[in-house]
Amino acid sequence: MSRWRKRTKRRHLTEKRRSKKAGLPPGSLVHIGEQRQAAVVLSVLDYDEEGFREQIPVELPDACSFRDSASVTWINVDGLHDPEVVQRLCDHFGIHPLVQEDILNTDQRPKMEEFDTYIYAVLNMIYCHAPHDEIEFEQVSLIIGANFLLTFQEAGGDVFDPLRQRIRENQGAVRKNGSDYLAYRLIDAIVDNYFVVGEKLGERIEAVEEILIDRPEPASLHELHLLKRDTIRLRKAVWPLREMLASFSRGESRLVQAGTLMYFRDVYDHCVQMIDTIETDRDVLSGLLDLYLSSQNNRLNEVMKVLAVISTIFIPLSFVAGVYGMNFQDMPELRWKYGYPAALVMMGAVALVLLLWLRRKRWI
Amino acid sequence: MSRWRKRTKRRHLTEKRRSKKAGLPPGSLVHIGEQRQAAVVLSVLDYDEEGFREQIPVELPDACSFRDSASVTWINVDGLHDPEVVQRLCDHFGIHPLVQEDILNTDQRPKMEEFDTYIYAVLNMIYCHAPHDEIEFEQVSLIIGANFLLTFQEAGGDVFDPLRQRIRENQGAVRKNGSDYLAYRLIDAIVDNYFVVGEKLGERIEAVEEILIDRPEPASLHELHLLKRDTIRLRKAVWPLREMLASFSRGESRLVQAGTLMYFRDVYDHCVQMIDTIETDRDVLSGLLDLYLSSQNNRLNEVMKVLAVISTIFIPLSFVAGVYGMNFQDMPELRWKYGYPAALVMMGAVALVLLLWLRRKRWI
Amino acid sequence: MSRWRKRTKRRHLTEKRRSKKAGLPPGSLVHIGEQRQAAVVLSVLDYDEEGFREQIPVELPDACSFRDSASVTWINVDGLHDPEVVQRLCDHFGIHPLVQEDILNTDQRPKMEEFDTYIYAVLNMIYCHAPHDEIEFEQVSLIIGANFLLTFQEAGGDVFDPLRQRIRENQGAVRKNGSDYLAYRLIDAIVDNYFVVGEKLGERIEAVEEILIDRPEPASLHELHLLKRDTIRLRKAVWPLREMLASFSRGESRLVQAGTLMYFRDVYDHCVQMIDTIETDRDVLSGLLDLYLSSQNNRLNEVMKVLAVISTIFIPLSFVAGVYGMNFQDMPELRWKYGYPAALVMMGAVALVLLLWLRRKRWI
Amino acid sequence: MSRWRKRTKRRHLTEKRRSKKAGLPPGSLVHIGEQRQAAVVLSVLDYDEEGFREQIPVELPDACSFRDSASVTWINVDGLHDPEVVQRLCDHFGIHPLVQEDILNTDQRPKMEEFDTYIYAVLNMIYCHAPHDEIEFEQVSLIIGANFLLTFQEAGGDVFDPLRQRIRENQGAVRKNGSDYLAYRLIDAIVDNYFVVGEKLGERIEAVEEILIDRPEPASLHELHLLKRDTIRLRKAVWPLREMLASFSRGESRLVQAGTLMYFRDVYDHCVQMIDTIETDRDVLSGLLDLYLSSQNNRLNEVMKVLAVISTIFIPLSFVAGVYGMNFQDMPELRWKYGYPAALVMMGAVALVLLLWLRRKRWI
Amino acid sequence: MSRWRKRTKRRHLTEKRRSKKAGLPPGSLVHIGEQRQAAVVLSVLDYDEEGFREQIPVELPDACSFRDSASVTWINVDGLHDPEVVQRLCDHFGIHPLVQEDILNTDQRPKMEEFDTYIYAVLNMIYCHAPHDEIEFEQVSLIIGANFLLTFQEAGGDVFDPLRQRIRENQGAVRKNGSDYLAYRLIDAIVDNYFVVGEKLGERIEAVEEILIDRPEPASLHELHLLKRDTIRLRKAVWPLREMLASFSRGESRLVQAGTLMYFRDVYDHCVQMIDTIETDRDVLSGLLDLYLSSQNNRLNEVMKVLAVISTIFIPLSFVAGVYGMNFQDMPELRWKYGYPAALVMMGAVALVLLLWLRRKRWI
Repeated sequence: MSRWRKRTKRRHLTEKRRSKKAGLPPGSLVHIGEQRQAAVVLSVLDYDEEGFREQIPVELPDACSFRDSASVTWINVDGLHDPEVVQRLCDHFGIHPLVQEDILNTDQRPKMEEFDTYIYAVLNMIYCHAPHDEIEFEQVSLIIGANFLLTFQEAGGDVFDPLRQRIRENQGAVRKNGSDYLAYRLIDAIVDNYFVVGEKLGERIEAVEEILIDRPEPASLHELHLLKRDTIRLRKAVWPLREMLASFSRGESRLVQAGTLMYFRDVYDHCVQMIDTIETDRDVLSGLLDLYLSSQNNRLNEVMKVLAVISTIFIPLSFVAGVYGMNFQDMPELRWKYGYPAALVMMGAVALVLLLWLRRKRWI
Repeated sequence: MSRWRKRTKRRHLTEKRRSKKAGLPPGSLVHIGEQRQAAVVLSVLDYDEEGFREQIPVELPDACSFRDSASVTWINVDGLHDPEVVQRLCDHFGIHPLVQEDILNTDQRPKMEEFDTYIYAVLNMIYCHAPHDEIEFEQVSLIIGANFLLTFQEAGGDVFDPLRQRIRENQGAVRKNGSDYLAYRLIDAIVDNYFVVGEKLGERIEAVEEILIDRPEPASLHELHLLKRDTIRLRKAVWPLREMLASFSRGESRLVQAGTLMYFRDVYDHCVQMIDTIETDRDVLSGLLDLYLSSQNNRLNEVMKVLAVISTIFIPLSFVAGVYGMNFQDMPELRWKYGYPAALVMMGAVALVLLLWLRRKRWI
Repeated sequence: MSRWRKRTKRRHLTEKRRSKKAGLPPGSLVHIGEQRQAAVVLSVLDYDEEGFREQIPVELPDACSFRDSASVTWINVDGLHDPEVVQRLCDHFGIHPLVQEDILNTDQRPKMEEFDTYIYAVLNMIYCHAPHDEIEFEQVSLIIGANFLLTFQEAGGDVFDPLRQRIRENQGAVRKNGSDYLAYRLIDAIVDNYFVVGEKLGERIEAVEEILIDRPEPASLHELHLLKRDTIRLRKAVWPLREMLASFSRGESRLVQAGTLMYFRDVYDHCVQMIDTIETDRDVLSGLLDLYLSSQNNRLNEVMKVLAVISTIFIPLSFVAGVYGMNFQDMPELRWKYGYPAALVMMGAVALVLLLWLRRKRWI
Repeated sequence: MSRWRKRTKRRHLTEKRRSKKAGLPPGSLVHIGEQRQAAVVLSVLDYDEEGFREQIPVELPDACSFRDSASVTWINVDGLHDPEVVQRLCDHFGIHPLVQEDILNTDQRPKMEEFDTYIYAVLNMIYCHAPHDEIEFEQVSLIIGANFLLTFQEAGGDVFDPLRQRIRENQGAVRKNGSDYLAYRLIDAIVDNYFVVGEKLGERIEAVEEILIDRPEPASLHELHLLKRDTIRLRKAVWPLREMLASFSRGESRLVQAGTLMYFRDVYDHCVQMIDTIETDRDVLSGLLDLYLSSQNNRLNEVMKVLAVISTIFIPLSFVAGVYGMNFQDMPELRWKYGYPAALVMMGAVALVLLLWLRRKRWI
Repeated sequence: MSRWRKRTKRRHLTEKRRSKKAGLPPGSLVHIGEQRQAAVVLSVLDYDEEGFREQIPVELPDACSFRDSASVTWINVDGLHDPEVVQRLCDHFGIHPLVQEDILNTDQRPKMEEFDTYIYAVLNMIYCHAPHDEIEFEQVSLIIGANFLLTFQEAGGDVFDPLRQRIRENQGAVRKNGSDYLAYRLIDAIVDNYFVVGEKLGERIEAVEEILIDRPEPASLHELHLLKRDTIRLRKAVWPLREMLASFSRGESRLVQAGTLMYFRDVYDHCVQMIDTIETDRDVLSGLLDLYLSSQNNRLNEVMKVLAVISTIFIPLSFVAGVYGMNFQDMPELRWKYGYPAALVMMGAVALVLLLWLRRKRWI
């Protein structure tokens, strides 16, 4: 049992504490979330159709200097626990203090907000962690400007590496497009990874289902409970994302070019598909709980039936034996020659009648 | 029990794995789904009011050559596991790479998307498989152009054969109409087949219901569970279809002629009817679960009542017998002449009182 | 129990089989539904403010001849199993083949569709059948033209007779109004009859409720289940009707005159009221199921408490008796003079202590 | 138990029978509802800023004569069982027959309908009746004309008396405003009274809650059931009211002056507040049912644990005693000197081991 | 148990009584709510970018005199039980009587209403009280004028102190902005505090969860029940707030400047986030109830299994012992030399068979 408790516990510990901000003025830059990484690491990737420059890690002033290049500049920040880095970078790019606050506050609801010179988008990267397939959330903020893209992550190690490789090798269409297309590719990579998580969840659900159909155990109940929680958390992350992607694909923003719209519509479709999957999982999980409860009841019924059958047969027999175990001086049956066999036969007859009765009730 | 487990299992194995696409760029043509058929088979059916040409199977270049005919060209692809065939065919007809990706990714949500020169529509063909009436889904993609229709299926063997026959024999209105009407006829054939599946499901529900009302068994619980899952999956396929058909029947597309709109409205009505049926099935299934649980409780109550009645009567009697079985030297009752009959009478009296009491409680 | 099964069964048998249409082209006239009546009977009622003509039964050609009269012509068809009659009549009045198909397909969802020269409306007539108050559905189709009204029913015997009488006797406003008002009157008669069915249902619910509060029986559970099914079916018939009546009362149709609109609004109100009633019934039924389950639990608790009390008191006593029934040679208590009374007193004391303990636990 | 049944019963008897109208033409004036009052009583109150005239009771012709006064005329009708009175009054004021029908049909859904020269509004007055705080509904219809207001109630005795007094004494703003403001004041008085009913309901819920937390009884279950029913009925009355008040406060009607709009918005707010309360009550009630079921389970568990503990300890002991009560001739233990004490010690040891085992399982 | 009852009770006692207003005319100033504070205390804070004036406490006439200053005037009223103070202040600022009524009626639903010269907004301040983390609600009303802000609270002691300090020290942007920004800052402070309450609630939920997973106790059930109630109450306070903040951020009001809109959008986002949290809590709580019920069932099953195992083994054995305890004169087994060991062996064999059978059923 304690294993389950520990797993549940650990999840709580990673919860973010939003309350430490209560009472502070708007735009106060306080990092909310656990510190996931020792140092804040910046990296820059500047490219156009002709070529690309890359610096990992890069110092803050160097990163800022890329702002004025005509080519697309992607600055990525790993680690948010140093508000000053975020602030100086954002100030250089003219980002509103409220947005800076949102970047640092890592329990944001997925959303997109349009400003004059940039779009702010925030969503969750979702991972499955071995060995228990625990689901972990990491907030990713994107600032999409005309020719730059800033991304902020809580920790290093992300799902963007294949894309970086493609940019370096000039594969596909990324290098031919602007920062909006790059943003789409990042969001697409994040959403694609949801399916990995969703399938892991699906496998865990199937595993529980098989155990439940076979023989229900209390441990399955706890796994069911954890699965339910994970589904609830996934849902909380994916539902608002849909709205955000719809905003992108409606093409209301000047910063998203017409050619990129249908890509956003594609990732929107993926998001809706993911929502379908989550809702189905919820339905299946609630069905599994019913299955568990019914199986439990079945077992209880079975146990009680055995108890009732044994008792129904032997309690009357024991009574008969008890009667002839009484010590009255004058019990004529006791002196009969065939008293003992007669008693045994009588008991057998009683048992037989009871057995037939139970059989007719279909208990045995 | 193991039969149930096997059936549940098989269903999981046929699930599609969307995760293998994670990390790939958009437009990557990867077939997601099981390989249902050995070879990819193309067939072409080209017709107008005057005549028709048919080639089964047809080579890819030959199929492509039909593009420029003025008559309606219907090219059907059975089997999706060879991305190259799909890609070459689609490229020839000028289909966007994202659409090609969707065609190959066989866990699409039903939807329709309009492009400049064609409409992309995707939905599920649903079958019932003997002997356990398992429900199977097969994705069908339709590309509706001005004078052509491309259809992509996961496997051969579909619900379109009666229609093909009618085209050959020039029965009905198909030959007189364009590719939009042909698309309607295909979608209508698919949706009509939903009712076959729905009725099979309904029959299975009725079968369970009858068993449940008669005498509930754990096996019915598992069947209920499978039915619930099937309903959830059906629902996932039919709900978005409604939206798609509404898009068609609103007549916003240049490619769908005014005369075809009311046919799409008709199939939209059928879809809504199917949704009604599914929702009703869901309600009925949840009612059956309640019925099962209550019946279980009823049986438990009955079992416990028998146990309680037997115990209530015989435990006190056995105690009396036990008392007179004690070996105290000085137990005056034991030496009474009518001690034994008196004891028996007393036991009978106790039993009678208890029986009357139980009768008043309406337990017996 | 078998009575319940039979009732449930019969309901299933009257279900319609939509699947026999799968694979047929649109406009195929196949009657879906049970054949409720031996012969198809046509009747005609032609009237204006001045007079009326009536023919029951009427031959098809005679009925058709009324089309061109300036007065309002109401042709009623009882029985749908002869597609030819429907087809010839409809063709004469210029009705679209898809509508003809819908008329014959008797599991339509209530809806209204407007065409150039007529409105097609379809809804359910609902009856309660003695002796078990089973609910039966009969589809009624209305074709509302400028000066004619065609009605199609599955069987003879309907709720329209009082209206026919009023037309003959020129009572009320029917003779003074057009075919739209006549259609309203028919729909109003149908919807009014819903309340009769709703009240019967309400009475059955009350009957079950009273039994449940008194003493729950498994039979009530089955009745609850049937009631739930009936409510679900009613709901399926009435919800879409609301939408249909809203379409009428919005006055978008040229064929419905302004003066008739408020009458349609009135029947719309009735429909909403009926929906309210059905939703309330659903809530009450789900409350009754909770009540049933809780009552069952109560009874189980009571049974177990009696069992526990009897066992708690007598099992220890029997043990004491068993101890003094042992045959050891050297058991000093057995030889004491007051050993036996002492043992009895001790048992009494034990019983008393246990009784007090149980009393403190409030079990007795 | 029978007290509960009686209370439930009485509620049913007061239900209205809508079905007696089935088959009648529209505008048939049939009173639906119980006859609550012996005679139909009319009263008139005619006022403007200068003065007021009042007649209680008033004869019908006298009441009608007030129509043409320039001052505001409020005619109130107590008792609806005499359709003729309603008809003559309404005809005099030019009210449509369908509205007259609605006035008499006392199971209307709250609604407002605008006509050329008047607004028809209908809603429920809700009372709590001692001693069991039963909730009773009375329909109130309002006809709001330019300078008159007709109100129709099922019985005398209403919540309007304070308002009448204020008119007589020219307190507040009533005398300064028109009939629309008077209508607002009446509706406000009715809605204000909902809060009294809501609080009574809240108190009953709290009372049940306290009992449930203390010790659950079957009686609480019945009270819960009645509370649920009352909440459902309240909900049915208040939800549509919201829509009606929204219609008023949107100010679409010529008959409601701009200055009165914000008053209607205020009563709309109250109505929404009431809906909030009802929804909260529903949530709390469903929580209480869960609490009840869980408490029942707790008690069952407790009972079973006692039974299991007693049985686990004494059944093995009794068996040992039974063994040494056997009458075999050659049982060496029986002849041992310390056989008996040894047996007792052994039994004690067995009991001790079992007790420790049960303790480790935390059963005792 | 009584501790729980007391806690529940106290919450009820603090409920507000809306019913004392029933029957009063609109605009009647009656304070609804408990009297939380001895005296009504007014404070004033008048500032612009240049400087600020503060008076705590301030007399009513002095407070009123600030109205005509060009600088922003914030008048705060602590305590609402003296209607006269509210009335005189509001009359001086030209506030509508219906608004005054709403200020005093402390069970308002959060809302905002726009008038010609001011906006009325009302919402709840929410606190957690030690030691049981009970949630308490206090109504705050804001009147936002062009250059003034009136706030009304039920008691002193609020979440505004940090803001007051910032105004005095001219930190941040408050002094540079108008009354609309001040209003935003107050609302933001209130909503920020919701997160503190939400996290406390989350902690209590986790605490219960851990206990439930470990070993369920009836006390956890009561805590669950209290948590559910608290969640329902929170929900009731936060849902309508969302609508109110949306009204603000849509920027329809002349009194809210364009620059403040995005701040309102920010607090709107926080509110939506809070709603997400509450909904998640609700889901988790309902999952915990299921967990509790299942755990209870598990324990019952376990108890019954032990009882059944003990009974199944010992009841047959006791019967055998009982048979050989019978006193028949002629029982040959009793005289056999190895009768006793044979009987013991037989009993052992019976026990062994039963044990093996139970093992195969996986009960032991």
